[in-house]
Amino acid sequence: MLLYVDTQFASPYAMSAFVALHEKSLAFEMRTLDLAAGENRGGDYARRSLSQRVPTLVDGDFSLSESSAITEYLDEAYPGAALYPTAPRQRARARQVQAWLRSDLMAIRQERSTEVMFYRPTPAPLSAAATAAAEKLFAAAEVLLAHGGENLFDAWSIADVDLALMLNRLVLNGDAVPAALARYAAHQWTRPSVQRWLALSRPPLEQT
Amino acid sequence: MLLYVDTQFASPYAMSAFVALHEKSLAFEMRTLDLAAGENRGGDYARRSLSQRVPTLVDGDFSLSESSAITEYLDEAYPGAALYPTAPRQRARARQVQAWLRSDLMAIRQERSTEVMFYRPTPAPLSAAATAAAEKLFAAAEVLLAHGGENLFDAWSIADVDLALMLNRLVLNGDAVPAALARYAAHQWTRPSVQRWLALSRPPLEQT
Ligand SMILES: [Ca+2]
Ligand SMILES: [Ca+2]
Ligand SMILES: [Ca+2]
Ligand SMILES: [Ca+2]
Repeated sequence: MLLYVDTQFASPYAMSAFVALHEKSLAFEMRTLDLAAGENRGGDYARRSLSQRVPTLVDGDFSLSESSAITEYLDEAYPGAALYPTAPRQRARARQVQAWLRSDLMAIRQERSTEVMFYRPTPAPLSAAATAAAEKLFAAAEVLLAHGGENLFDAWSIADVDLALMLNRLVLNGDAVPAALARYAAHQWTRPSVQRWLALSRPPLEQT
Repeated sequence: MLLYVDTQFASPYAMSAFVALHEKSLAFEMRTLDLAAGENRGGDYARRSLSQRVPTLVDGDFSLSESSAITEYLDEAYPGAALYPTAPRQRARARQVQAWLRSDLMAIRQERSTEVMFYRPTPAPLSAAATAAAEKLFAAAEVLLAHGGENLFDAWSIADVDLALMLNRLVLNGDAVPAALARYAAHQWTRPSVQRWLALSRPPLEQT
């Protein structure tokens, strides 16, 4: 299999697919696209991905983009460790968490880009909009983790990576995060599949 | 079951969940929340939905938000018409389409809000960003529908509703859309479950 990711290994969605492939112990090759140079907008990749975004998984003659669709596909099509809970309501909740984190909290995603985690923090304070988004994130995460466990559900799931990443945009930048949530995010970050992503050799950021 | 939707019946995600419930022939009650008045930000709904957004499905003691998580849950938990393809790669593609339409094409979603479909068109021309998003949408839809069928896959799926809705933001506003895509969107709009959503009695838009 082949996974297209961004040159900086900064896409949180590429990371989610990468972690899923490692969790399933699937052999794969990575190809990088320089998004700033528009490599993703070229003809072949544009057609394969449909969205011109990363990641895209290529499995034989099948190309699939959107990280949550990729992780669902890997879980259905391949044996090995489960990426999603099997209990229907936990499974539904995992999908809710993934869909929510990909379509909301925009102010956090903009003001605490993944570069603050994978390159260097920013001293810029959070805007009022980002502070409100952070409060919403904390309230939701506290409900989801009210059971006090290490993972969202009975066992680890790919939704833990996505939730920990959103929290770590703040934690790793030094922004205030409730202690229990910061501990959850730090623990998720120690997972070997996540550590492999963090250990990738990144090119310098382009000067802007 | 209970489905929370917006007072204007303008949320495309509420529509997708509504259509899914009708396609499964499930009995449900609707409750409306006035988003402009902040009814979604109140304590009980905020806690139930986690995201403070609509829709939220309540099934017994289980509350679930995010429309794609809701439609997956309904398809797994209840018998009746299938909302997703059963073939793994078609199923994956349906999830890709849903995830993509919920996280990209922002300029179309902003400049052609669903009010242009459910209330009245706007004379404002598309910006350069929205025009580029429309071109990306058309290119992707043409690949997905290159087989010339009425639906994305062998049979109708919930992803058809979501794709037709995105196209109809433009078609029903009078913006230029390739003829084959406009025909696809018009055909999808005739589906009885969709017509039920369109036929809901809407309050006047608040003056702004
Ligand atoms: Ca490259
Ligand atoms: Ca780049
Ligand atoms: Ca109401
Ligand atoms: Ca309203």
